Formats: sequence, C-alpha cells, structure tokens
Amino acid sequence: MRRLLASDPDFETKFARIVNDRRESDANVASDVRAIIGQVRQKGDDALAELTSRFDKHALTAELSSWRIGKDQCQAAYDFLDKDAKDALELAATRIRAYHEGQLPEDRDYRDAQNVRLGARWSAVEAAGMYVPGGRAAYPSSLLMNAIPAKVAGVERLVVTTPTPKGEINELVLAAAHVAGVDELWRVGGAQAIAALAYGTARIKPVDVITGPGNAWVAEAKRQLFGVVGIDMVAGPSEILVIADNQNDPDWIAADLLSQAEHDPSSQSILITDDTAYAAAVEDAVDVLLSQLDTQRTATSSWDDHGVVIVVEDLVAEAPALANRLAAEHVQIALDDPEAVFAGIRHAGSVFLGRHTPEAIGDYVAGPNHVLPTGRRARFSSGLSVLDFMKRTSFISLDEQALAAIGPAAAALADIEGLPAHARSVRVRLP
Amino acid sequence: MRRLLASDPDFETKFARIVNDRRESDANVASDVRAIIGQVRQKGDDALAELTSRFDKHALTAELSSWRIGKDQCQAAYDFLDKDAKDALELAATRIRAYHEGQLPEDRDYRDAQNVRLGARWSAVEAAGMYVPGGRAAYPSSLLMNAIPAKVAGVERLVVTTPTPKGEINELVLAAAHVAGVDELWRVGGAQAIAALAYGTARIKPVDVITGPGNAWVAEAKRQLFGVVGIDMVAGPSEILVIADNQNDPDWIAADLLSQAEHDPSSQSILITDDTAYAAAVEDAVDVLLSQLDTQRTATSSWDDHGVVIVVEDLVAEAPALANRLAAEHVQIALDDPEAVFAGIRHAGSVFLGRHTPEAIGDYVAGPNHVLPTGRRARFSSGLSVLDFMKRTSFISLDEQALAAIGPAAAALADIEGLPAHARSVRVRLP
Repeated sequence: MRRLLASDPDFETKFARIVNDRRESDANVASDVRAIIGQVRQKGDDALAELTSRFDKHALTAELSSWRIGKDQCQAAYDFLDKDAKDALELAATRIRAYHEGQLPEDRDYRDAQNVRLGARWSAVEAAGMYVPGGRAAYPSSLLMNAIPAKVAGVERLVVTTPTPKGEINELVLAAAHVAGVDELWRVGGAQAIAALAYGTARIKPVDVITGPGNAWVAEAKRQLFGVVGIDMVAGPSEILVIADNQNDPDWIAADLLSQAEHDPSSQSILITDDTAYAAAVEDAVDVLLSQLDTQRTATSSWDDHGVVIVVEDLVAEAPALANRLAAEHVQIALDDPEAVFAGIRHAGSVFLGRHTPEAIGDYVAGPNHVLPTGRRARFSSGLSVLDFMKRTSFISLDEQALAAIGPAAAALADIEGLPAHARSVRVRLP
Repeated sequence: MRRLLASDPDFETKFARIVNDRRESDANVASDVRAIIGQVRQKGDDALAELTSRFDKHALTAELSSWRIGKDQCQAAYDFLDKDAKDALELAATRIRAYHEGQLPEDRDYRDAQNVRLGARWSAVEAAGMYVPGGRAAYPSSLLMNAIPAKVAGVERLVVTTPTPKGEINELVLAAAHVAGVDELWRVGGAQAIAALAYGTARIKPVDVITGPGNAWVAEAKRQLFGVVGIDMVAGPSEILVIADNQNDPDWIAADLLSQAEHDPSSQSILITDDTAYAAAVEDAVDVLLSQLDTQRTATSSWDDHGVVIVVEDLVAEAPALANRLAAEHVQIALDDPEAVFAGIRHAGSVFLGRHTPEAIGDYVAGPNHVLPTGRRARFSSGLSVLDFMKRTSFISLDEQALAAIGPAAAALADIEGLPAHARSVRVRLP
C-alpha cells in the first residue's frame, strides 16, 4: 500500500505512475489463439473434443450430456438451493430486469422541414453467447448480469459456454442460468468456446454477440473474432476508488476497499480522503479486517501491491479531477452530500453515492449492470447494457419534391468525389 | 453477375453460397502490425518519421508543416471550392448535424419502490481520432460522417490522421475538415497512425476513440488496439440490396446497383424483383450504363464477380426473409408501398424507402450516417452514431432504510460466492 499526500512536491509524479500502472497481463497468446480458432473453424466439434480433453480433462463423447447441460439440470440446481439463496437470486434478477428494461431505446420516425422522412428502428440480435469461466471467477451474479440484459433486449437464443474441468459442474452457475432463462449451456471453455460461438459447429449454432469474462486466451479470442461477431469491452482486473471524509466509520471503508481487493491479486483499491489521521485509521482497520477474511491471501496481495491512500486538502475541489484521471470502474462517494463531488466526475464506470451505498450493493442487487469498464476504459466505454444486444437500422424516405430539394447537392458531392453512378442515381429521378 | 430463380430447386444452395461468400481480404498482417505498434510505442515520433518515409515517401522533418496541416490551410481549401460545392458540403453538414442531434441519449435519475435512487449519466469522450485514407477512398463526405457525430456528442478534441503520399494533400478532405470543425490534422497514415492515436507520442496526444475506414493494416491495428481505445466496427466492402417491382424505370435501378459497384471491385449489388422480364431489362440497363461510366472498370469488375439478380414470386412474402439473411449494409425498397416489406426487415444497416429514395441520398445529404455495418454485420451492429463518442456512468444511492430492504440479499449472494469482504461491507451498515 502506498500513501500519497497531494501537498507533496512529487505528488504528480507518483500519482501519474498510479494512473499509468498497467495491472493487466500482456501475455502474448495471439498465435496460440489463432491456431485454436483455425482448428475449430476447420474441424468443428472434433476440435472441441480434442481441445477440451487436453485443456479441461473432460471427455466430450457421443453422450449428449457430456456436451450439454440440460434445462432440467439447471432447474434441479436451483431447487436444491436454500430459500434465502433462492430469494436473493430472484430479488437480484427482478431488480436487474427492471433497471435494464428502462434502457430499452426508443425508435425514431419523423419528417423534417424538407419533408424528408427519417428515423431509426432498434432490434435485438437473434442469438447471444455468454462465456462463464470455470473455477474461482464463476459467479452466479455475473451470469445474471450478462444474461438478463440480453433477454430484456429480446434475444431469442441465449447460449452459455463454460468449462467443466475434470467434468466438474458449478451448481450455482446452473441455478443462475435457470433464473435468467438461459436456453443452451455447453461444457466447452477457453478460446475454443469463443471460436465455436462465433463460427458455429455441427452441434453449437453460431451466435451474433459474445459477452462475458475469461482468461487471457478467452479475451484474445474475443479480440480476434471482433467483427465476425459483436463482443463486449475488454475486461481487466477490478478496481474501486472510495472518496470519503472522516465522518465514516473506518471499518466500513476498510470493508469497501477490501471488497475489490479480495477479487484478484491484481485488483486495485484506492482511498481519497482529506484527513491524515483518518487515513491512518482506515489503514489500521484494513489490517484488522485482512486478518479475519477467508480471502485474506488474495486481498492482502492486492492491497499490498496496488492499494493507495491519497490525502488531499479539499475533497470537493481536488477529488473529481483525480477521479477522472483514474477513470475507475467503481467510484464510491461516502459523504453526507455527495452531489458536489459527483457533479465533477466524468469518467467512471459506476458511482455509489452516500454513506449507505457500499459498492457490493451494485455487484448484486441494485439493478445497474456490474459488468463495467476497467483499466481506465471508463474514459471511452460503458457498462454492459441492453444496447450491447441490439442494433439500429436507420431509414430514409423521400418523395419527388423532397428529392428535388436536396438531391442536387447529393449529386454535386458525388461529382466532386468522382462517383458518377451515385450522381446518376439521383439525377435520373429529378423532375 | 448471377441470376437466381427462387423457384429453382437448387435456389437454397445457391443463395446460401451468396450469403456465406466472403468478399473481405483475409490478409494476415497481424505480426507486421504488432511490430509497427511496438515501434511507435517505443520510439514515438521517430518511429512515425521512419515509417512515413518508408511507406508514404513523405519526410516528417523539424518543420511543423511537414507533420501537421493547419486550420488556415483547411479554410483556404474550403474557400477555393466553387459555390455549388460549398453549398452542397454545408447542406450535408447541416442535415447530418440535425439528424445526429436527435440521437443524443437522455440521462436517467429515478427512485424505485424500495426508495433506491438509480440512474445513468451520459458524457462525451474527451478526444476522438479519425482515420482518413489517402488516395481513392478519401471522401470528404466520409470525413463529415465521422467528425460531425463526434462534435455533436461533445468531443472537445477531434484529431484527423491521413497519409500524404509523396507529400500530396487531398484538398477536398481539408475543405471537409474545415466544415466539420476538425481540431488537428496530422500527415501520418497506416497502422503507425492508429498506434500514435492510441498511445500518443510527444507531438500527437492520445485519443479515446478511433473511427474511420482504412486498409488491411489500419483495420488490423484498430483490432489489436481495441480496449486500449474504443474503436468503431470493422468495415468491409460496400453492398446494396435493391428490392424493386417492374414499375420502376430499369435505368433508375441500374444506376442504384452500380452506385455500389463503382466503389470497389469487391463491392456487391443485389436486385430482388418479382418479374423475370423486368430482371432482364435491368440487366440490359446495367450493361448500357456500365459503358458510360468513368468508373466502368471498377463497377464492371464488381458487377461481373459479385452482382446478383434474384427473381421471386411475391416480394412481400419472400424478400424480407432473404434480406434478413443477407443483412446488407443498404436495402432499397423501390415500391409504391414499401411498408409491408420494411416491416419484415430486421437486419439491415440502413433502409431506403420508395421509388424516389436512391441510396446515394443517404451517402451525402439525408442526415443518417453513411458509416454502416457491412459483411452481414447488421445482424449485430449499427451505423456510426453519437453513442460511439459517448459513454454512460450508472449511479446508485441508498439510504439506511433502502439498504435494510435489499442489503441482506446482497450479503447472502456474497456469501454463496465466497466473498466475505463484499458481505461485510453491506452487513456493517445494516441497522
């Protein structure tokens, strides 16, 4: 953990280093992934069986159940949960659905002053694929956050691929798939799963959009197949910026900081406060809490390597500019009146306002998506939404008079661009 | 050109071949591009000078004018145009601006039944870069279509990079840059320009989003840098699908078909009609028009290799399903009443309705963007819009009571996901 004082003469240098710190692995797996994609494209299901045996030690055989998990199995996994867990999943699903329904875009259809009819019509993609990692990072909440926006958008076919290493299935993911209404669930992982979703095989029909987190191979496969299918933003390690004054219980803020740190050793937690003594109190509370967590190892590693505490003079005057440079995935503003700081924040994935809004609320049940831009990508990208599963078709309609009004300009531009058939297609229709 | 009859027993086989026909080059330039990006990242402007000298035969020297084209030069290029060209550019810019202003998204801010405050706030990226190719594909209209949405979105810094081979500058592009209000114009092209925009150099500050068409190197550089910056959809050769009955003048439809064919030898023009004799009349009109075009060579090559005429029994019953499988960039519905066909079309970049709406109107002056998904990408992507230059920050605010209502479910989910700090950050705040 590093403590920075904004008043230090070398603050800018130190802060710039934190801003430019890359916590993402630059593993060059491009050629491996290219080979895997080629193999799946060429040999289809045979390639999937071969690669799944090699990487996941799982045999894809003539038995359909070795390939695919049925809806009945998802239902059974859900039924097996205790009531609290069921209720929590349902509450999360209901609230996520409600928030994302409010994102559905409106069509446009109007006539302008030249009597040109213009507009745009939104529609869902037909099929979406979602990658769910195996092991530690397989979170049921993540399945809900990817699947529900797709369903709200109107996607007819929602396909999940997930590795089942040594045949092991994550029952919580199955239960979430039941709640979210996933249509197909395939036991395939890695770059080979992404290739199968993009190009299709005999068993797995291709999809139009692929979302969901994954390891370096999965991320590179998505990057290479961008354009063959639509994909969501590249995801990096999680991060939180907490802006807090000394009126917060240090234990609360310590828990907030460690809720990101416990995700991954490369996660980052940053506190900005305006009181040096309070900074020390939070640091102490972090140390105490660390010693109590089952996720101690991961959280300690993250906090030690990437944790930052910044002390400024004036939160309202200084925090927003720092926050915008960090462009963090999560920004928590733990103040009685968070509005003044919030007003200055332009680059952030999601903002959590006030003392009673811990970031974890947004991970699970608030409603907005928890798939958010990391690694300063909030400068140019947004959380997952129904728009990731939809596309817009613009339309234009002119009658003879409207064409007479604006057609000559189109023909003139076609002339200067040296495109005579363009010009002609307009001029033949002029009165 | 191929003629297909929907009633032929082998129609499905032939049509499927057209749907799956890939007209995009699969040139594997990935490792070349990776090397160029590495060079620019490491050596900055020196790498740009070296690569520009090698690829563009243009010397980037100590003279700023060898690097950068000033706003005064853009103004001068505009002033030099004749009045018709100026008026046409201004009309195009005004109409494009008006249409894109209507795309500006609305923020959300509301309280739900649990008194949870939820919402989302949109903001523009700070800087956008736009690639403008040298030579044949450098269209002033394309500059307007990329730049104006960025400006409407609220982007403060709009940067164009364009190669100037042997020092040659395209004056029309400069004039369009003047009209669109471009802030910086750099004489750099290829993958090296994309790398400079993404990572920045001493001279060229980095941007947040890069759009604009380019050759295979430019496209691959954008793909590799996706995630470092935001990028627009991968662009392939242009295409048009015209759905027309025999009440259209065959000359009009021939001009429409060739207005795509003249773009590039790999462009594709497809006609669907319901009258074999009319199909023949359009084919004849195409042959006559081809002989008259300055773009004859390109248009003939495209029409010969990729042109298709499909004859169906019933346009309303059959054309929409075929159109959706083709998911074409442009769909023109040249019927007295285009609505019934339009209602069935789900996958298309842009639709042109009625007999007096040639596609070329949309290329220049209608208002909607002419940067549209190609190569069946309309199944999952949209034309360029202000949203490509904006991002959304969600926000959440709970008071003590709201947290008491939904917090326990969040903590329960954190428990089952094995994330104790998440659970704790909620539970410590519960009453």
